[in-house]
Amino acid sequence: MSVNLETNAAVDKYPSRISDKPELLDRKDPVVYTEWKESSGVTKEQFDSYDKNGYLMLDSFFSEAEIAQWRAELARLQEEFRTKPKEEVIREPGGDEVRSIFAVHKQNEIFKKVSEHPRLKQLVDNLLGSETYIHQSRINYKPGFNGKEFYWHSDFETWHVEDGMPSMRALSCSIALEDNFHYNGALMVVPGSHKKFITCVGQTPENHYKDSLRKQEYGVPDQNSLTQIVKEGGIDTAVGKAGSILLFDCNTMHGSNSNITPLPRSNVFLVFNSVENRLVAPFSGQQPRPEYIATRD
Amino acid sequence: MSVNLETNAAVDKYPSRISDKPELLDRKDPVVYTEWKESSGVTKEQFDSYDKNGYLMLDSFFSEAEIAQWRAELARLQEEFRTKPKEEVIREPGGDEVRSIFAVHKQNEIFKKVSEHPRLKQLVDNLLGSETYIHQSRINYKPGFNGKEFYWHSDFETWHVEDGMPSMRALSCSIALEDNFHYNGALMVVPGSHKKFITCVGQTPENHYKDSLRKQEYGVPDQNSLTQIVKEGGIDTAVGKAGSILLFDCNTMHGSNSNITPLPRSNVFLVFNSVENRLVAPFSGQQPRPEYIATRD
Repeated sequence: MSVNLETNAAVDKYPSRISDKPELLDRKDPVVYTEWKESSGVTKEQFDSYDKNGYLMLDSFFSEAEIAQWRAELARLQEEFRTKPKEEVIREPGGDEVRSIFAVHKQNEIFKKVSEHPRLKQLVDNLLGSETYIHQSRINYKPGFNGKEFYWHSDFETWHVEDGMPSMRALSCSIALEDNFHYNGALMVVPGSHKKFITCVGQTPENHYKDSLRKQEYGVPDQNSLTQIVKEGGIDTAVGKAGSILLFDCNTMHGSNSNITPLPRSNVFLVFNSVENRLVAPFSGQQPRPEYIATRD
Repeated sequence: MSVNLETNAAVDKYPSRISDKPELLDRKDPVVYTEWKESSGVTKEQFDSYDKNGYLMLDSFFSEAEIAQWRAELARLQEEFRTKPKEEVIREPGGDEVRSIFAVHKQNEIFKKVSEHPRLKQLVDNLLGSETYIHQSRINYKPGFNGKEFYWHSDFETWHVEDGMPSMRALSCSIALEDNFHYNGALMVVPGSHKKFITCVGQTPENHYKDSLRKQEYGVPDQNSLTQIVKEGGIDTAVGKAGSILLFDCNTMHGSNSNITPLPRSNVFLVFNSVENRLVAPFSGQQPRPEYIATRD
């Protein structure tokens, strides 16, 4: 991998973790990269809603049979890695329970197929206006009773600073493997937040990603900016049955509260990036995170 | 205060923190202690719903002017006790921020009047079928951004074991001083859970209440029992505008998730106990908790 740090610094459209004061910058990239057409895979209203709000919930996108298979595979992997050490396995803060397994699109035949699902791929490629590839994949266990909260963040802020993603031309797809209710830690999004970029304060220490996957400490937006975007856009909760998917732009502000209910909330998480937006050197000037967190090959 | 520990042990209808195996016991007391009548202060449907589900949400019970005054008083007290030490003031785990102030019905003129509010008192006295008095009062700050979760519990379990409340003839009233949304840590209740008593395992250490008000470790129901009652009753979230009240039976299982949103969720919390159900010695056989947590005078 050959990268040029000076070049990156010159074209940094979204500088973050540099200044000691947060700023609310305007987005400099489109949200959808094509016009809507019949073959887009969603209605014109859904397409426009994604553009405007930065996310789209689609109920019953996958069948019950598909979900049952993936849930079984997830349970199998959770059991397999309960005690077995593996770099791609992230555990709950203060415990050994498996929280996430990364790079499942490479290391697991079943989830590799999910990441190549033709109907999903067509929809995503249409929104991003090009071929796409998987930037990151993971399966998340959000267990019942003690599911931890995940504080507000823009994924793009991290992918830009720590992974070197140049532009906002990526999106995430969260596939619900369990029913998502208001009360079991469902993802919250701030509608319209994808059109602003909140610069974060504080330098990033080298190799902090190992902790940040368990508990976030860098790339955390400030309370004033959060208050402002919530005042403007409100909060929406991604409630839906197992089999529903949530598509959300890489810069949509999101987070989730804890989950004390007995109901787990597991999902498959796939990040699609445009092939026109491949990673360069991290804009932090630091070493890139490992391949299983941010695909470079 | 003169109490007879032996007598208590003989009439303990709800033994808890004694066995090392949890049990689901049937409730041995009524829920409502009178028949519905016109003067009950709620409709027959509401009255019956409280009886059946163990809680009742009443929108716009208090006026905007009342709420504005109480919110201002709460802000004033929060400021006053930010650094001033006081036994009745409970702070956030791992921080100095004020979480709750107890005994406001005694120590604060404004909240004393709230606790004697005629329309509320009439409603409560009717449900409990007798005169009532305030067993416990507090104002709770659930701040935005880092409002902590509160794990599932039955208040009665604690009041019985630690305070010596003999029977289930008490209820709580939570007055919303802010809008309660699904996403800002609103109270969750398990409908119908008040008809079962989950015995908890583990002895209670002396004086543990000082920590338990910050973070609960004893009187915690087991996961199997919680799973069972949620399977039977589901989960309901007490969503409502400022000025709404939630009445819930002393044995209704409740808890709340964390609150990472910018929106605080403060409330006034009043526990009414029947004068026929005054405290005896704690069923734990231990020293009673202090007066500001459990009124005995």
